[in-house]
This record gives sequence, structure tokens and C-alpha cells, in this order.
Amino acid sequence: MATGRPAFRTLVSPGDPAAIEQLVRDTGFFSTEEIAIARELADDGLANGPASHYRFVIAGQDGALLGYACFGPVPGTESGWDLYWIAVRQDAQGQHLGRALLEVTESAVQAAGGTRLYAETSSRAQYEPTRAFYLRRGYTVAARLPEFYGPGDDKLVYSKLIG
Amino acid sequence: MATGRPAFRTLVSPGDPAAIEQLVRDTGFFSTEEIAIARELADDGLANGPASHYRFVIAGQDGALLGYACFGPVPGTESGWDLYWIAVRQDAQGQHLGRALLEVTESAVQAAGGTRLYAETSSRAQYEPTRAFYLRRGYTVAARLPEFYGPGDDKLVYSKLIG
Repeated sequence: MATGRPAFRTLVSPGDPAAIEQLVRDTGFFSTEEIAIARELADDGLANGPASHYRFVIAGQDGALLGYACFGPVPGTESGWDLYWIAVRQDAQGQHLGRALLEVTESAVQAAGGTRLYAETSSRAQYEPTRAFYLRRGYTVAARLPEFYGPGDDKLVYSKLIG
Repeated sequence: MATGRPAFRTLVSPGDPAAIEQLVRDTGFFSTEEIAIARELADDGLANGPASHYRFVIAGQDGALLGYACFGPVPGTESGWDLYWIAVRQDAQGQHLGRALLEVTESAVQAAGGTRLYAETSSRAQYEPTRAFYLRRGYTVAARLPEFYGPGDDKLVYSKLIG
């Protein structure tokens, strides 16, 4: 079968929320509560399109969803943006798709007037690849909140100046 | 006219959202966007009652709203809670009403199984009384995010262990 290269789009299509929920669940990384939130944000993006608080970059190939990023402006700030989600389907990892999603996201944030992008993650061992990913992409630890998620589970806030 | 002592309640009454919006506006501290958010959370509390994500402590006296606090559990954490709002009507300040609201809030968080309460504020000079208030009440600076709100305007995250 013919396979193309991943294509990136920013509009959420009708099939995306279910595919996003499946992708997030299949990573095995996220709780039921987190999976529900990922689905809810995608539903909001589909329902409200460009008027949604939530912006998306979606990587698709041959009709399948390979990965996505979800982000939005931080309310009450002049130009801060939050990266809410970035996830790549397990069988599509190792192709620098995460890097590409983050680069497209940063360009979109910059185009929207954003100057700073935040990404939060956990100090647990499971998230070591995530933390290494942000550091490689030029993010630094802006804050660390001890035991934020639970005992022995700190929150790390990574940030990067954009533009 | 007879005046009683302030009474505290946790259920949002039909007149509260408009009174909360007015109170928050009258402080002169908050942006139009922030005032809208305060109103939205109060509307949610009224519409959903105890099922709302947002919990309230409301101080009233002789049918008037003197101050309130709004708080809720931090999604994705075991027992972290956020203090979203705490505000006292200007003509009711100096009576330790803020302290009382915070104490009732902390008791409610503890009763709900919360172990940590977070309060965010700005590094701007205008918020010096707010910062001093949290420090007096046993909060410490858990994190500082440089220029989070805008140039020269850091975010300070205060936290206190509850119970």
C-alpha cells in the first residue's frame, strides 16, 4: 500500500477526538481522568474550531492520526502559552515526529503573538524521556513544585522563550 | 439598624454571582478578563451546587456579601487544592475577614482529604499586601515563574501543608 509522509493540520476533524482519545489511552501513560480531559479538549476544538481556547497540531498519514499537540494562551498573561498535550502513537515513535509537532506548535504560538511556552511534567522515572525531550528542544526548568502530584511526585514546569 | 456578625456559608445562593462580580470589580484589583472568570466560577457553583468543581466560602452579613473564597481540587493530583479567589469588600477590610475566610477554606480542604493548598499571585507592588497575608498565614513560596504574567511581572506560587 502507498504510504505518504506525515502531514500537519491545525483544524480538528470529526474523527479526531476519538482517535486522540485512543492514541492517548494506548500510550499507557495517562490516567482515566487525564484521558477524559484529552478527549474533552479535542471535542472543544472540534465544536468551536478557531474560536476554541484550545489549538491543535495534528499529524496524520494515510487517514490515520500519528500524533498531536494541544496548546493555548495562558489566561491573565500577556503572552504566555501552555502546551497541554503532546503525544505520538507508539508505532510512530523514533521518527522525530514529537520534535516536528513541537516545532509547528512553537511557530503557531509565535504567529499568535506568544513569547513563552510552558510544558508541565512529572518528576517520576516514567517521564524521564519526556524531560529529556524538552531539554533537547531548548526548554529549561522554570519551577519545581515538590510533591505536587502526590508523595514523591514533583511537578516540573519547563519553559522556552519563543521568537 | 441592627447588624449581626458575619456568617459563613458554602452554598452559592441565586444572588451571589452578581454580588461576587460586583465585589471583585469594586476592589479595583482585577482585569475585565479576571472579573469575567470570577463570575463564571460563581455561576458554575450556583448551577451545579456541591457537584461543581468549584467550592465556595461566602461571608455574609445582613443579606450583604462581605467576602468570599473560591477553591477546588487540582486535577491530576492526589490531594492538591487550588485557592482560585479570595476577596473581601473594601469597606469590610481590617476585620480579619480574609483570615477567617482562609481558615474556613483550609478546614474545608482538609475535610475533603486535601493535604496542600496553593495560592498564586503576582510579584507586582500592588500585591504586596496579598503576599504578606499568605506569609502570615503560614504559606511559603513553592515556586516563582519569572515574567509569567508579563514583563517584570512574575508569578509566585504559595503553598501550605494542610492537616
